[in-house]
Amino acid sequence: MTTAAKTKPSLHTVLTPQLLDLYDLKDSIVVIIDVFRATSTMATALYNGASKIIPVDTPELCIEVGKQTGGVTAGERDGKIIPGLSYGNSPSEYPRDFIENKILVITTTNGTKLLHLALKQGAKDIITGSFPNLSKVVEYLKEQNAPVILGCSGWKNRFNIEDVLFAGAVIEEIKDNFDIHCDSSFMANQLYNQQKNDLSTYIKTVTHWHRLAAYGLEEDMLYCISKDTAPSLPIFKDGALINRG
Amino acid sequence: MTTAAKTKPSLHTVLTPQLLDLYDLKDSIVVIIDVFRATSTMATALYNGASKIIPVDTPELCIEVGKQTGGVTAGERDGKIIPGLSYGNSPSEYPRDFIENKILVITTTNGTKLLHLALKQGAKDIITGSFPNLSKVVEYLKEQNAPVILGCSGWKNRFNIEDVLFAGAVIEEIKDNFDIHCDSSFMANQLYNQQKNDLSTYIKTVTHWHRLAAYGLEEDMLYCISKDTAPSLPIFKDGALINRG
Repeated sequence: MTTAAKTKPSLHTVLTPQLLDLYDLKDSIVVIIDVFRATSTMATALYNGASKIIPVDTPELCIEVGKQTGGVTAGERDGKIIPGLSYGNSPSEYPRDFIENKILVITTTNGTKLLHLALKQGAKDIITGSFPNLSKVVEYLKEQNAPVILGCSGWKNRFNIEDVLFAGAVIEEIKDNFDIHCDSSFMANQLYNQQKNDLSTYIKTVTHWHRLAAYGLEEDMLYCISKDTAPSLPIFKDGALINRG
Repeated sequence: MTTAAKTKPSLHTVLTPQLLDLYDLKDSIVVIIDVFRATSTMATALYNGASKIIPVDTPELCIEVGKQTGGVTAGERDGKIIPGLSYGNSPSEYPRDFIENKILVITTTNGTKLLHLALKQGAKDIITGSFPNLSKVVEYLKEQNAPVILGCSGWKNRFNIEDVLFAGAVIEEIKDNFDIHCDSSFMANQLYNQQKNDLSTYIKTVTHWHRLAAYGLEEDMLYCISKDTAPSLPIFKDGALINRG
């Protein structure tokens, strides 16, 4: 009598949205990662009780959907609130006493784009990940036992270290549960392990830190690399992210 | 009296051919990197006296150009010589007593593709890099004082660790001469520094090692991560790579 080896699901890391079309998403859970700051803000707003988050591609659509739903409109370009919208992309703008039971309609440069690409490519399931909801993401991926794509949003299609650091942190927790043949995932995990003991010093060396520090957003970024400060699980259903809890 | 700060040229690392269009190549030297094994073999054949190397896209063109030039035709798919061609992609097939004064016409999966993309995007200058000619590449880039793109060939447009390790080795030697605002380059350099003391153990963990080891190519790959064993400088001129020396 032979015993069939237990097969584990696959796991891949996609380093920028421009590489997503190399992967088959049909049976996969795609984790959208935009550490600075879209997915950190999404986790925070849902944790603080937002009823849902509607991610949209453009400021125009943000205004329109805001009107239709009565939602709070949010979006920044170059560190400033986009004219016509009401709030920015900072997690600190969405405490419970403001966002609870409200709809957040948000447009962001990189994360929203990747989410819509994943939808278009027929992802089975889409969630968002960030350090503030790391353990919730890990728990969900272990529980689902399905193929995983860790999708890094990057910056205008270029590779970003902070997103791959989060991918590496997830991999560190779930690698025994998956069958990984992916150099991007090996690299992500090695980079995370190399830097994990002093992320707050290391993060100051990456390009996006410098870009956002020029707008005075250092505190925001340090929050965005803090683990489990907003333990929600944003999952995309019927055009919006809701908290699966 | 003010003294103008001396400006250094830029340096970027491109992680796969699919990301090349994000970069302006017009004033740049592009280093084509395909560690396993195209650019290692190219450095070796030129070091051993090949008069030139003509990289072509397809086996059909390889046969045609071979006939026109009287060159040695070479190319593999899945670890076997492509029907109609005469030799493979292994550096060990091109010792001096075979290749000296001959033309090598070669087709490879990833490196040739990237080289032709760089040409099409108007790169100022194209050279090839690999561990066997690391010091020659470093010396050339320091001497030219122009913007640099380290172009990793990857595997079917996916990210490959061995190519980025070579990029990291180059960066380690020239980083003081360049102005680097590129997370891909920071990552490449950090990964190289993390692994450089035992590359021959580390390399056995990457996906491409397993793919090629299945064809019995372990010795080839260990050669391909040996530094300065074939100190040539392949530079692309008039449709072919020649040894600048």
